[in-house]
Amino acid sequence: MQNALVRAIAVAAPLPSLGDNTGDLDRLKKALAPLLDGVMPVVPYQRLGKVAERFRAAGFTGVAIINDMLGGPVLVDFLPQPPPALAGMALDLGTTHLEATLLDLATGATLARADLENSQIRFGADILTRIHYAAKAEGLAELHIAIIGTVNELAAELARVSGLAVTEIRALSVSGNTSMVHFFLKLNPYHLCREPYIPMVNAPDPCLAGELHLAIHPAAPVWLLPSVGSYFGGDLLSGVLASGIDQQPETCMLIDVGTNAEVIVGNREWLIACAGAAGPALEGGVARMGMRAGPGAIEHVQIDPASGEIQYETIGKGKPKGLCGSGLIDLVAELYLTRQIDIRGKFRPQAAGDRLIQGSEGWRFVVVRAEDSADGQPVVLGQVDLDALMRSKAAMYAILTTLTNQVGVAFADLHRIYVAGAFGRHISPRQAIVLGMLPDLPLATYEPVGNSSLAGAGRILLEKEARDRCLELAGKITYLELNVNQEFMLRFSGSRFIPHTDPNLFPSVPFFDGE
Amino acid sequence: MQNALVRAIAVAAPLPSLGDNTGDLDRLKKALAPLLDGVMPVVPYQRLGKVAERFRAAGFTGVAIINDMLGGPVLVDFLPQPPPALAGMALDLGTTHLEATLLDLATGATLARADLENSQIRFGADILTRIHYAAKAEGLAELHIAIIGTVNELAAELARVSGLAVTEIRALSVSGNTSMVHFFLKLNPYHLCREPYIPMVNAPDPCLAGELHLAIHPAAPVWLLPSVGSYFGGDLLSGVLASGIDQQPETCMLIDVGTNAEVIVGNREWLIACAGAAGPALEGGVARMGMRAGPGAIEHVQIDPASGEIQYETIGKGKPKGLCGSGLIDLVAELYLTRQIDIRGKFRPQAAGDRLIQGSEGWRFVVVRAEDSADGQPVVLGQVDLDALMRSKAAMYAILTTLTNQVGVAFADLHRIYVAGAFGRHISPRQAIVLGMLPDLPLATYEPVGNSSLAGAGRILLEKEARDRCLELAGKITYLELNVNQEFMLRFSGSRFIPHTDPNLFPSVPFFDGE
Repeated sequence: MQNALVRAIAVAAPLPSLGDNTGDLDRLKKALAPLLDGVMPVVPYQRLGKVAERFRAAGFTGVAIINDMLGGPVLVDFLPQPPPALAGMALDLGTTHLEATLLDLATGATLARADLENSQIRFGADILTRIHYAAKAEGLAELHIAIIGTVNELAAELARVSGLAVTEIRALSVSGNTSMVHFFLKLNPYHLCREPYIPMVNAPDPCLAGELHLAIHPAAPVWLLPSVGSYFGGDLLSGVLASGIDQQPETCMLIDVGTNAEVIVGNREWLIACAGAAGPALEGGVARMGMRAGPGAIEHVQIDPASGEIQYETIGKGKPKGLCGSGLIDLVAELYLTRQIDIRGKFRPQAAGDRLIQGSEGWRFVVVRAEDSADGQPVVLGQVDLDALMRSKAAMYAILTTLTNQVGVAFADLHRIYVAGAFGRHISPRQAIVLGMLPDLPLATYEPVGNSSLAGAGRILLEKEARDRCLELAGKITYLELNVNQEFMLRFSGSRFIPHTDPNLFPSVPFFDGE
Repeated sequence: MQNALVRAIAVAAPLPSLGDNTGDLDRLKKALAPLLDGVMPVVPYQRLGKVAERFRAAGFTGVAIINDMLGGPVLVDFLPQPPPALAGMALDLGTTHLEATLLDLATGATLARADLENSQIRFGADILTRIHYAAKAEGLAELHIAIIGTVNELAAELARVSGLAVTEIRALSVSGNTSMVHFFLKLNPYHLCREPYIPMVNAPDPCLAGELHLAIHPAAPVWLLPSVGSYFGGDLLSGVLASGIDQQPETCMLIDVGTNAEVIVGNREWLIACAGAAGPALEGGVARMGMRAGPGAIEHVQIDPASGEIQYETIGKGKPKGLCGSGLIDLVAELYLTRQIDIRGKFRPQAAGDRLIQGSEGWRFVVVRAEDSADGQPVVLGQVDLDALMRSKAAMYAILTTLTNQVGVAFADLHRIYVAGAFGRHISPRQAIVLGMLPDLPLATYEPVGNSSLAGAGRILLEKEARDRCLELAGKITYLELNVNQEFMLRFSGSRFIPHTDPNLFPSVPFFDGE
């Protein structure tokens, strides 16, 4: 594509002669300039000999590989024939999981798709533990090597599926949270979690894959989506790109519900963001009993109010293995609506029937009995999991209200709310409203945007406009720090009920007080 | 200096706070942009962590080190205090000798000066032998390692003299012939000496010292003066810069007399060049009996026509060790004028007296007797040396006439002739005219420009205008290939007499024909 991060450009240069003694590389650059809007490409030293030799070996005609870098076009390779595919890898560099697509940079087509668990998990499931681990001797190096290793495995898998050599992957775009980007670039994350929460870098300049010891082509540009702050990473900027909130005439909101909750509100004039690494609220608990939205995950749940019978849908229609985010929200909302839990999110044994059993850690609700599950283990929801979800949903609502209050926008003024992220991928806005997690607005207000982190990374590979827009956006977004926001803490307390301590905020949700 | 290749820029950024969560590096770049004409500097990946950490450690105030690269400013380091000196190394990368100066990039002052023999000599005294050596397995690698080693030794010496650490040398400019630049960059020189004589690259883009394993600061930019062809290197472009021939309204000539003879003619409108790697003419012989213009070298010679007594001047006024280029030209001219050699450059035993003795390789003329020399060895001129000089001077004159003839300029039309290069440094134009090496023009036409290769490299370090001009020049100069020029070969034959077969060309020189 004309604006891809890497392009293959067919070029034929005049043959050298006694009357034309231009150097090989100079000859190639001169022939390319008219094809690059008159700009002479630069050749980095480590590619100099290879490009010049391959150009001569090909008889001074063939295909030049051009990276579109910030300073202009960079010539990195020369092939005698057009490559079978000019492939670029779009990567969602998640804390828990990495997801990637391999795109054909010439056509935009998806060549392969893969995902893998983040191997850094052995150093800590959550980011904070890893940041502390990085402070140990060699800790940062270990974390860096681990994440590069996972990316390399993922690249190998993409190559395998698409029938390419891994070194035929000639570009990489990376969308991740600020901490993950620090690990990926081997930058000290020490100050990320310490007031005033300053990243070492928000917008790193693109580098080449070889500098990071990535297994893809060493001259592949590595383009990282910029962060806005320690808790507002390139993954959310991807969401902005993918949703187009920055181009809307009317005020909208983007909510990314992952391990953290990140929120942005605004329109084409202004954008204000905040994130809820705030509390322990959105960390830990939920992920513990949940699973990724993949085959066997329960994504939707219904409970018959009369019989108490549970109906569920699993992704892939097979037997259930666990609950993904949307399944969990559905389940808890239905438990509330059938009054099996109270407004504080506590099980009501008098209403729950025989599915509620006493375990060593308190009550556990059996969602799927052992005999009906995929692995012979029952799928259960414990009181501890419920407590964690209550904190999560409270944090989410507190974030949304704090942010809108700060910018003087009422929920009702929001034209649209985009819901993104792994957790929110299959979310039912209605059930999230019942829980008091999302504001009580008409369902048409909500628009799911899927894994926008990955989608944004893909656009970075294909569109120069997206790359430019992204760098501009990073400077345009105002970031509100909630870690030290008193208002947030107050609102968080008020939100720890279903749907809320102030039921007037949720007129559409039944309120079962005073039981 | 405002336009130096590397600059130290004092900068104080606002401190990070909860209200200003810009990343460390982004903060620094933002503070620097107004000091860089509004341009945001780029930070290469390998400097990212170091710059950000040093900026924070210095309390967000100090001195940024900025390389002025082709794509714009590049931020490579941060110091808490201004450095004692911001030093750059200007290098004349000669085939036989390397010469360098260390310049203070802030003031332009010379901090140190050093020279060293090219350690590649062990692979071959002349370039052609080395090009053949490069074709062996590991040959190019050996040549590359040798030259990098010599440059590193020279850098260490400059650092020692100026009391700096070698890593405090933060820039390097390199002026060398095309082959030397190929060895320096580890580029295959195979085609340089094969028709149609095409370099792998004429104008390599600047790189960083670390990429070449240089011992100076790894982020020091390495800026190479571009070549125009295989036999027209950056060293001659340095001469153009230093002489200013490209800015003259009237047509001038620049002659660089080194191991090769390189010539350029033109004015601010046009420039045409050629070089005499043509023949074996200027290779071998002369260097064999000569020595560099250094302490103990005879630089000027006079022979009393009546007594035959020889008077000489040595550089440094000490006892003589050998003849440098200018001394050799003086000597042979005086031998001709005192009729001790004939117009073919052969000794005339009947006229030479007792200084001429028969040796195993024919006649040898004793310039300085053993008892008067610095090392107890006589300084002699053999017939073989004389023959070599005759070839050299013939090639030089043939080059000059071929070139001027091609462009339709008579010698008399030349406003000025700049004489540059190691061989020509102390040259007496009058004696060179006697030999028929330089055209018979008023002496005021000739202007020595010293080691212009080194001078040009120095200007590259200090002046952006020189860097820009240089790249423009490389594209502007037309190069005439003499290796295959029939006219040159004819003129070469005609020039193998003193002063010439056509004495009318040298009216000021006595012609002793028919003896």
